[in-house]
Amino acid sequence: MHRSHTCGELRASHIGQTVTLSGWVQRSRDKGGLLWIDLRDRYGITQLFLEEGKSDAKVMEQARTLGREFVIKATGKVVERFSKNDQMATGDIEIFVEQLELLNASKTPPFTIEDESDGGDDLRMQWRYLDLRRNPLKNNLVLRHKIGIEARKYLDSLSFLEIETPYLIKSTPEGARDFVVPSRMNPGQFYALPQSPQTFKQILMVGGYDRYYQIVRCFRDEDLRADRQPEFTQIDCEMAFVEQEDILNTFEGLVKHLFKTVKGIDIPSVPRMTYDEAMRRFGSDKPDIRFGMEFQDLTTAMQGQGFAIFDQAEAVLGIVAAGCAHYTRKQVDELTEWVKRPQIGAKGLVCCMCNEDGTFKSSVDKFYSQDVWQKIAAQAGAKAGDLILILSGATDATRKQLSELRLLMGGRLGLRNPEEFKPLWVVDFPLVEWNEEAGRWFAMHHPFTAPKPDHFDLLETSPGDARANAYDFVLNGVEIGGGSIRIHDRKIQSRMFDLLGFSPEEAQHQFGFLLNAFEYGAPPHGGIAFGFDRLCALFGGADNIRDFIAFPKNNSGRDVMIDAPSTIDQKQMDELYIATQPINE
Amino acid sequence: MHRSHTCGELRASHIGQTVTLSGWVQRSRDKGGLLWIDLRDRYGITQLFLEEGKSDAKVMEQARTLGREFVIKATGKVVERFSKNDQMATGDIEIFVEQLELLNASKTPPFTIEDESDGGDDLRMQWRYLDLRRNPLKNNLVLRHKIGIEARKYLDSLSFLEIETPYLIKSTPEGARDFVVPSRMNPGQFYALPQSPQTFKQILMVGGYDRYYQIVRCFRDEDLRADRQPEFTQIDCEMAFVEQEDILNTFEGLVKHLFKTVKGIDIPSVPRMTYDEAMRRFGSDKPDIRFGMEFQDLTTAMQGQGFAIFDQAEAVLGIVAAGCAHYTRKQVDELTEWVKRPQIGAKGLVCCMCNEDGTFKSSVDKFYSQDVWQKIAAQAGAKAGDLILILSGATDATRKQLSELRLLMGGRLGLRNPEEFKPLWVVDFPLVEWNEEAGRWFAMHHPFTAPKPDHFDLLETSPGDARANAYDFVLNGVEIGGGSIRIHDRKIQSRMFDLLGFSPEEAQHQFGFLLNAFEYGAPPHGGIAFGFDRLCALFGGADNIRDFIAFPKNNSGRDVMIDAPSTIDQKQMDELYIATQPINE
Repeated sequence: MHRSHTCGELRASHIGQTVTLSGWVQRSRDKGGLLWIDLRDRYGITQLFLEEGKSDAKVMEQARTLGREFVIKATGKVVERFSKNDQMATGDIEIFVEQLELLNASKTPPFTIEDESDGGDDLRMQWRYLDLRRNPLKNNLVLRHKIGIEARKYLDSLSFLEIETPYLIKSTPEGARDFVVPSRMNPGQFYALPQSPQTFKQILMVGGYDRYYQIVRCFRDEDLRADRQPEFTQIDCEMAFVEQEDILNTFEGLVKHLFKTVKGIDIPSVPRMTYDEAMRRFGSDKPDIRFGMEFQDLTTAMQGQGFAIFDQAEAVLGIVAAGCAHYTRKQVDELTEWVKRPQIGAKGLVCCMCNEDGTFKSSVDKFYSQDVWQKIAAQAGAKAGDLILILSGATDATRKQLSELRLLMGGRLGLRNPEEFKPLWVVDFPLVEWNEEAGRWFAMHHPFTAPKPDHFDLLETSPGDARANAYDFVLNGVEIGGGSIRIHDRKIQSRMFDLLGFSPEEAQHQFGFLLNAFEYGAPPHGGIAFGFDRLCALFGGADNIRDFIAFPKNNSGRDVMIDAPSTIDQKQMDELYIATQPINE
Repeated sequence: MHRSHTCGELRASHIGQTVTLSGWVQRSRDKGGLLWIDLRDRYGITQLFLEEGKSDAKVMEQARTLGREFVIKATGKVVERFSKNDQMATGDIEIFVEQLELLNASKTPPFTIEDESDGGDDLRMQWRYLDLRRNPLKNNLVLRHKIGIEARKYLDSLSFLEIETPYLIKSTPEGARDFVVPSRMNPGQFYALPQSPQTFKQILMVGGYDRYYQIVRCFRDEDLRADRQPEFTQIDCEMAFVEQEDILNTFEGLVKHLFKTVKGIDIPSVPRMTYDEAMRRFGSDKPDIRFGMEFQDLTTAMQGQGFAIFDQAEAVLGIVAAGCAHYTRKQVDELTEWVKRPQIGAKGLVCCMCNEDGTFKSSVDKFYSQDVWQKIAAQAGAKAGDLILILSGATDATRKQLSELRLLMGGRLGLRNPEEFKPLWVVDFPLVEWNEEAGRWFAMHHPFTAPKPDHFDLLETSPGDARANAYDFVLNGVEIGGGSIRIHDRKIQSRMFDLLGFSPEEAQHQFGFLLNAFEYGAPPHGGIAFGFDRLCALFGGADNIRDFIAFPKNNSGRDVMIDAPSTIDQKQMDELYIATQPINE
């Protein structure tokens, strides 16, 4: 071992011992006769110390040649530090260096290896190994490791078995686009990489495995955004002989366990909200409940006063921004422009200041008297000093727009503290949703989700009203988990495929093995999958999952460090019986 | 929850309680007025009981309709069993059934769900979910889960971090054939699935992560055998600031921990043997040391007696099969045929019986006097009653042939007990081996393995003599782990690529990121990877890894249950800018 201790380990109690440390030169300071080196490894930083006259002249000379990020091995005595540093775990001591060995030199890094680096995103992606040396990334990966260990510990304690499912599976047209893998041994045929182990975990339930989990990579060939990667990791779980309540309790327990063991936070019982309620109160199926600012339905109150836009709207919805009555015209205009951007798509915004003197001021005062505003403010719970923000239009669209505005205002008012955690179960999701473009129903969760038993008949009469035993786990406005009770009856599954526009032949071709399995004693079962990358990011108080993945891809799906994907040899293609098509761009 | 207890949980202490169990009907016995049902789940079997007159008539009637593998939910009272079964954990009790609910029916399975099934391999692969219900497979997957949990526990306790590396990486020509994945966003370009996370784990060492592990899927597009799968799992590990000794100690600790916690076996210190010694004593770099039967070099003793075949041979090697002097002519002929099969490739076999009366009998007695045999027997340590088996020819080939014969004889003599575990470190592997066909040196382990520091110069003069700090962990004659100290110096790595026939441009194109990383403070590092599937199989006392993988592929790389690989749509191919080539067979 090139060390006796790590760079984060030595304390006052080690004073007098001779130790060997190895690590990277974080910085060195040469004050003439005195030389200090901060030596860094994964565990911390320890100060090395040399002194002209006292130190061996050759060692002193060698120490002076060390640059940033050189890898060295230093042996010496632990001594008490003259000026202690209580910001550092090792701040009570330093090492008086007796021997020094250069293990490897380093060129000057293209950016500084500091908590706040001077390197841009592209540069840091290309030199990922240097970026990974920075504390913020290191802490993220350590956090990720801990969450993985604790998740397994919890699930193992409840008799869940981690069972590996295959990565080379079969392409299915439902859902997102598959990555495919040509088969050399089966010319002209392809494997697909799994978008999730969904059918395999259900097969394991049919196989009697009862409680399954896997922390597993999944693949989706979709266009990428900041929080999406072509490969991502799920905590994937399934249970047999359970009802929805059992799953909610079991996985609420998982999240509580993770908060407790990883962050030392006690999470009280997780509230539940139906999908319909979440949409009504927050205009979102993943409401951020760290703050209120709930939707107020002002339709009745605001219609019939002669303001045509509101009178013609399906819904007039408002939120109250506490203490914002002082907003200037400029601020209001800026908000109006913000909601009118194409990403939000509102036609306009009505703001009403609830002045401290009890009067009201809005841009539509010619339609609404002070008395009407008084009533509206009372209904909305707006107090003097508050600002009422109102959007109108078709219900679904208006909810969506106002939800975005609510999140914006919540952020601006400092109500979205990343160190505050407010989880929520959203339950009773619709089973299917109509896709105008495709002209057919699509599964809201996936085609294996069971309708609520008393909603079976709705599949015939009005599928859009059918609710499923499907649930999402939402944390601070982010969906980090979702699942459902599955269909375990072949007839219902066939009926579902039928509703989704699969012909019996297609259903049999794609999912025949599952349909057949349902005829050989499939138990009632259900499950959930958590997005591991997002969960880690939220635990780390961050938005971007990239900083929680050791080697992420960029928005073009490229790993710029290794320069992948890349072209392959003609010989490789010939062996696989494939060719590339000409590219017209 | 569709149960209050599992089918493996109830004991005499539960007598009198009303419980609900769910599971599969293993079998039922209808003795007129009395009906017993064995109800099975993952945890065990519990006997259900109904009685004409005492039981509800409808429940009795319903119970009579239940076939094998029906899924039911039964509620009733735990009662003491009249005739206890001490072969079953639940054998003291049975359930007097009061309510019965059919959760799902089952067709008659195509084979019996028993420890010894009547289903053939193909049938069982196709209906994997039924095969997985059988105890032997279930126990294997439970064992696998346990080994995974304990491996993580051990590594976590030593500050190893599990860090996920990407599955969509870059194709490299060195090593086995890659599976490739066309990139839609980068037309004409391909990802490759990793054969191992080798370069990424080295990059993590450069990134300062110090101790890494991952239980990770790897992919090799090679022709398949019983113990090879296109996707397989590794326990992949790497450490920085270590020397070979540190790695051997750390991972000997891992294997000991697994044996202790999973099988309750204390493994004493693991012996070490150099590659050269293993080849000399056992003719194999993965000797099975559960038994002796070591190679005896009889070249000097047997040459010069006029037997031309031995006289012309580079090596004459023998083993002693204890107590086999009684072998008949037929048995000897059979052994001779066995070594002459093309898979072994020997030209012939000389056998010498060491008779109980002190005489010797061989097929080459006209060349060898009793005196000579006496000396040979003494040298080989053969006693009266033993059989000496002798092969000759070129040293390497003869060793290989005799090693196979040794394993055969060891098996026949009952010396290879699958419940006895004899691990071994084989160390000091050659760095490179000459490939006649390609006319160049190939890395014995991989191109990142470091030569022993005092063997650097041999790279110039005689590369074949250079030894590496490379080591294999061998268990009962099976290599379950292998690793090395890596090169961390750019110049040495370039020199190595040069020796392996890479042009500087090729080396830069393929591994430029690693070569560059070595210039920015790469620490000394090394690691090891264990074959998780094989490790599980050995722990389970089995040869075939397939029974330790939930969803294995067959020898054509097919998953016959889901019928993959399969053809994909033209639209999918167009999106990926690929086409299939015509197949000429």
